[in-house]
Amino acid sequence: MTIRDVAELSGVSVSTVSRDLNEHPDVSDDVRARVLSAVKELHYVPNASARDLVKSGGDSIGVVVRGADNPFFTPIITAIEKSVEKAGYTLSIRQIRAGEDELAAAARLARSKKLKGIILLGGRFDYTADEVAPIDIPFVCCTYANNFGTVDRAAFSSVSIDDRAEAYKAVKYLTDKGHRKIAVLMDSSRDGSISELRYRGYLDALRDAGIEPDEGLTIESSTYRMDSVYDKTRVFAASGKEFTAIFAIADSMAIAAIKALHDEGIDVPGDCSVIAIDGINMSLYTIPTLTTLVQPKEEIGKRAVKILMDKLEGSGEHCHIRLNTALRQGGSVRNL
Amino acid sequence: MTIRDVAELSGVSVSTVSRDLNEHPDVSDDVRARVLSAVKELHYVPNASARDLVKSGGDSIGVVVRGADNPFFTPIITAIEKSVEKAGYTLSIRQIRAGEDELAAAARLARSKKLKGIILLGGRFDYTADEVAPIDIPFVCCTYANNFGTVDRAAFSSVSIDDRAEAYKAVKYLTDKGHRKIAVLMDSSRDGSISELRYRGYLDALRDAGIEPDEGLTIESSTYRMDSVYDKTRVFAASGKEFTAIFAIADSMAIAAIKALHDEGIDVPGDCSVIAIDGINMSLYTIPTLTTLVQPKEEIGKRAVKILMDKLEGSGEHCHIRLNTALRQGGSVRNL
Repeated sequence: MTIRDVAELSGVSVSTVSRDLNEHPDVSDDVRARVLSAVKELHYVPNASARDLVKSGGDSIGVVVRGADNPFFTPIITAIEKSVEKAGYTLSIRQIRAGEDELAAAARLARSKKLKGIILLGGRFDYTADEVAPIDIPFVCCTYANNFGTVDRAAFSSVSIDDRAEAYKAVKYLTDKGHRKIAVLMDSSRDGSISELRYRGYLDALRDAGIEPDEGLTIESSTYRMDSVYDKTRVFAASGKEFTAIFAIADSMAIAAIKALHDEGIDVPGDCSVIAIDGINMSLYTIPTLTTLVQPKEEIGKRAVKILMDKLEGSGEHCHIRLNTALRQGGSVRNL
Repeated sequence: MTIRDVAELSGVSVSTVSRDLNEHPDVSDDVRARVLSAVKELHYVPNASARDLVKSGGDSIGVVVRGADNPFFTPIITAIEKSVEKAGYTLSIRQIRAGEDELAAAARLARSKKLKGIILLGGRFDYTADEVAPIDIPFVCCTYANNFGTVDRAAFSSVSIDDRAEAYKAVKYLTDKGHRKIAVLMDSSRDGSISELRYRGYLDALRDAGIEPDEGLTIESSTYRMDSVYDKTRVFAASGKEFTAIFAIADSMAIAAIKALHDEGIDVPGDCSVIAIDGINMSLYTIPTLTTLVQPKEEIGKRAVKILMDKLEGSGEHCHIRLNTALRQGGSVRNL
């Protein structure tokens, strides 16, 4: 089945079919209808790679997703897909595990797919110039900003929330409601990543509220895995430590924590308030509904693509965009 | 940076570096170590596409994921990725929305990436031969079996559970515990898809337990979206209908339903038992923990890849594999 068969059946020239399939504006509605009908009848599938090569020299954008099982990423991937498609580029997605090397994966993907630009969805915060050197195309850190890294800020872009400032807001929400014994549930206080940044925001908020940080109120799970977070929270809850609230650095952690508290006979929010950051869909269905700072997930994906497009079309510089969260009041926080 | 630089720095020939990078067995450990060290020092990234062309003629497998926001698919995708990589093929993933045309997406992906085989992760159950004609490479229906379709069973493969038989088991679990007023929560009773099959299993189990089906005990959400499932379940719960249990055809639906029942003041399992099918990670964290029939997700992914590999390497016929679920007893079902 070739474009010639389509041309023959629709009674127009091959070049007209080609113009139509490539969405040129100078094709009449009548011709469009005839070509479409022929395409359907013949089950003709345009060879996208050949067409793209003609159109644009093979313009393709890559996304490396670090932590494919993170539900927070799903709506961001969807937004990236839509935006890339709208911009007329094709998209290559590569998923890696949470602990894997996203830079090596990005470099490999860039070479093998001859990418024009790449979006890293999730990654470490401490890149060096040497480490990013193998990625010789524009790249965007998406949902993180590489805050602890030493790479020249003009050499890459980033789109994320301000993790430290947003964590501050979440904890301030608790102190404003009278909480002073606030535990923090995180991956690690020294991961050189999101967890450490949000932990710093927690400390900032305690300090501004005149509360002395208590090492005994930190719960470090060393992973985002919900089973581990659940176990660590149960052990903490059973330890006899006094606390009236938990700030979880991620919704998925908060969901596991609410279950762990429940299984230890601790009522949320009666005995313990819980607040988090992210706003994943599932956190609407916890009992009680999770109070959380919702990240603008769609906007994050859109902006990552826009930066790349501006860059590729020559009009843009690399930039670092910080977006705000929106508080979603659930039922998991109460006034003391 | 070329393979010559790596050869020079590691003090071996270009062909030795090439053999090493292509994982030939006849490279000594000493040489492997030197090449690896040179690769690291030079930040050398092998050109995978060129290498693959040399190795295997560009062997690539595709996956079309229908419903990227379905958490049930995540561990299956991970298993597919691992198996494809292990088999020495590369993987191209394309995500489409739940209602989109997976056959058109598969045909496009197959052409543009010159795929050798394709896995459809989620899809309609009623394909005709004409509809699948544009996919001119071996394909596997993964998590569904195309039960309502008219395509010759020898022309494609499938890996899934037996949806009707598993639904039967779930509902029998409820009738064995004394439940007789059992509601069913589903997408649609006539979707020509998973929902309809599982609904038929529900009817079979009622019949075998001597229970007359009651039209008033069907909740059709016309979608898997949790917000809609939640709304429909609340309306049903508030309607005054008598029921002691709900069979939800999917875990994600059960999670939304438990929340809806709670918000209507109905205790699970005190006032209403809930059972489902799937076994997604999140259903371990509902309160109470969801009782569900867990699908062998990793096995489903592995088997889909194995069928394709057997087929591509000439030794296999198309086949249709049905795997069993495993009951996970949570706390959401009680004896009446």
